[in-house]
Amino acid sequence: MKAYQELGKEELLSLKAQLEKEYEDAKGKGLKLDMSRGKPSISQLDLSREFFDVLTSESDMKDENGVDVRNYGGLDGIPEAKRIMAGMMGVSEDHVIVCGNASLSIMYDAVSRSMTHGVLGSTPWCRLDKVKFLCPVPGYDRHFSITQHFGIEMINIPMTPQGPDMDMVEKLVGQDDSVKGIWCVPKYSNPQGYTYSDETVRRFASLKPAAKDFRIYWDNAYAVHDLYENGGDTLLEIFAECEKAGNPDMVYEFCSTSKVSLAGAGIAAVAASKANLDYIKKSMTIQTIGYDKVNQLRHARYFKDINGIKEHMMKQAALLRPKFETVLAVLDRELTGLGIGTWTKPNGGYFISFDAMDGCAKAIVAKCKEAGMVLTGAGATFPYGNDPRDSNIRIAPSFPTAEEMAMATDLFVLCVKLVSIEKILGE
Amino acid sequence: MKAYQELGKEELLSLKAQLEKEYEDAKGKGLKLDMSRGKPSISQLDLSREFFDVLTSESDMKDENGVDVRNYGGLDGIPEAKRIMAGMMGVSEDHVIVCGNASLSIMYDAVSRSMTHGVLGSTPWCRLDKVKFLCPVPGYDRHFSITQHFGIEMINIPMTPQGPDMDMVEKLVGQDDSVKGIWCVPKYSNPQGYTYSDETVRRFASLKPAAKDFRIYWDNAYAVHDLYENGGDTLLEIFAECEKAGNPDMVYEFCSTSKVSLAGAGIAAVAASKANLDYIKKSMTIQTIGYDKVNQLRHARYFKDINGIKEHMMKQAALLRPKFETVLAVLDRELTGLGIGTWTKPNGGYFISFDAMDGCAKAIVAKCKEAGMVLTGAGATFPYGNDPRDSNIRIAPSFPTAEEMAMATDLFVLCVKLVSIEKILGE
Repeated sequence: MKAYQELGKEELLSLKAQLEKEYEDAKGKGLKLDMSRGKPSISQLDLSREFFDVLTSESDMKDENGVDVRNYGGLDGIPEAKRIMAGMMGVSEDHVIVCGNASLSIMYDAVSRSMTHGVLGSTPWCRLDKVKFLCPVPGYDRHFSITQHFGIEMINIPMTPQGPDMDMVEKLVGQDDSVKGIWCVPKYSNPQGYTYSDETVRRFASLKPAAKDFRIYWDNAYAVHDLYENGGDTLLEIFAECEKAGNPDMVYEFCSTSKVSLAGAGIAAVAASKANLDYIKKSMTIQTIGYDKVNQLRHARYFKDINGIKEHMMKQAALLRPKFETVLAVLDRELTGLGIGTWTKPNGGYFISFDAMDGCAKAIVAKCKEAGMVLTGAGATFPYGNDPRDSNIRIAPSFPTAEEMAMATDLFVLCVKLVSIEKILGE
Repeated sequence: MKAYQELGKEELLSLKAQLEKEYEDAKGKGLKLDMSRGKPSISQLDLSREFFDVLTSESDMKDENGVDVRNYGGLDGIPEAKRIMAGMMGVSEDHVIVCGNASLSIMYDAVSRSMTHGVLGSTPWCRLDKVKFLCPVPGYDRHFSITQHFGIEMINIPMTPQGPDMDMVEKLVGQDDSVKGIWCVPKYSNPQGYTYSDETVRRFASLKPAAKDFRIYWDNAYAVHDLYENGGDTLLEIFAECEKAGNPDMVYEFCSTSKVSLAGAGIAAVAASKANLDYIKKSMTIQTIGYDKVNQLRHARYFKDINGIKEHMMKQAALLRPKFETVLAVLDRELTGLGIGTWTKPNGGYFISFDAMDGCAKAIVAKCKEAGMVLTGAGATFPYGNDPRDSNIRIAPSFPTAEEMAMATDLFVLCVKLVSIEKILGE
């Protein structure tokens, strides 16, 4: 294949005419496809059907400690659920609190609490002139929404296949005491699917923050979300590294079963040092009498332990793998060598990240939409929805069927080609 | 019975000697009783046993709108759950958001959001020098904990059987623009079990607040919690009154099924005007992708509608009524005419409020504890844990069995008598 940039104007115009015809045909099909969110498919949810049979009117409703899960109390979560969530993060269950159905809420609360009450006794952020967060980009839009909502200034940090640009992170965290946090998805990052290298994790653990209330917001959303049985990425456990580096309190880690059991009705957890947890609990004990322990028990009885989770995730992988492979096959076949796009090939997680030619992402997303396919809004993977190069597009293959996915990707590459030609032609 | 105050010293000393003997006997029994929290009993939880059979692996998992409750999405809650919660509050379902398992969290979030983002565009409270809340006393300790946690100054408002002292409320709310809220439990108030009169509700609805961001925090926790089938109190619906008075945005109403279905795994809701809900949703949509819709569906399928809730509450009442009646019978029999205590006789809710002679509450609670019975800490029903008269004690009859309740109340009156005699004797 010849790169588009090397084609002459006539060649481009003729190609364009042909692609436009294909595009009109595609539009005529009346497609209705949604690749906008990392939403599990119905088949994935159906994997947990028997989850609903675990607790019945006949069941013993007591947790391992003999506490009736139906009643009030138990701020930390029940022991058997703690153990599972700790297993997912590879940390000690003593450092875990199991909460409600959304790790996003725990993250929101962490930032909100820091605004009103500070971090381990520091000045509440709402009293400071300036609070900044570092945001590896492209990244997760809902992280950026939280910091934006609280008026926190966000600074882009370029991602590499090894993780965020650590030279830049070290410099900013070390010099600027208004830098209070960094959003990280360390395993199968959203949207690129990169896993932080051991060196990156160690450099994180060894940061020397100018701000005592700086924390790493370690959103381990895809901790157990491998696509291949024996080819999963491994992530170094950060708390152990922090201990070694003399930074025991620097990390909040988050995870959930939203993409393990049920997206809307899973359980979520936070892991942190004892000092951090004690401080978190001071607010939590005001905020709630306790999270839904019935759902925690349902999870514990259904999955039993971390091995149950891992087995279940291999069933999830069997459903997700063909969709990822379909997208990648179409991208490979249709775009390789054309010089109009690059994309990632993750071993897990929920996304493929596509980088178009600069200035083309918005136009591609709009063109897909016109033909009936919703993609994540261009720019969404950057703070303030502003991708400076207008290049990144997040592809979420989980929700559609494999057949829909193939159609969707055909349409996607068509739009990439068309928009790229228009760009090259300077239209 | 002769009032203790009218007894001579010798009579008191002889009575005291006899009571002390009884107290030593009671201590010898090694009691272990807990009347500290409004916690449903195991029999109450068992009323909802079949709740666990409603959703099984065979169930249709779609809500009325065809949305799969297992997946992400649906910030407001599912329609059938909205309708039930709206029914409990007597409001339109359009003004309701169904959330997670705790109305306490919704209240905490309401205050927290006001701290960081203000109310409908007002200045965030964290930027103000002074924020005050009015607190009808005695009241609910967890309300006071929230406002204390955020450094909000709390002002005691005396309760009457018709509700808070409205002269004082009108004056403070009307004159002081740092007064931003008032905590209310308008039906079967915690701990007195008083229900606000129609006049009180109308005066609330007609308040002319100096602060535009003043809100009434209307915690309708006991909306359907009557003890008697045909003798329940009725509470005027406040939103309709607010509309009439031209104050449509002045109220946030909260309720939950914690004391209907399961204390730890119910569903909670907030009702408010459209303007308020739109503002709340701006934060909520950042905070969560959606609350646990599976549990909402389980509730909707189990209770079906508000009539299902009401039928269920009559079963709850049948369990609670004998406990309340036991306590009241013992108090009546043992303390009537002695001049050492007064108590309320609620038609619903979870508590009986006892007022001892001034300066006796802490000593009574301590004496009960010494003999193996835990009561809510004296002072807990007041902001900052400070009951200025050291008089109020909250009795929570729900958790123990009726037999335990009888033993507990016997011990309680014994302690009341002993401490009162000591007080009169000036010991």
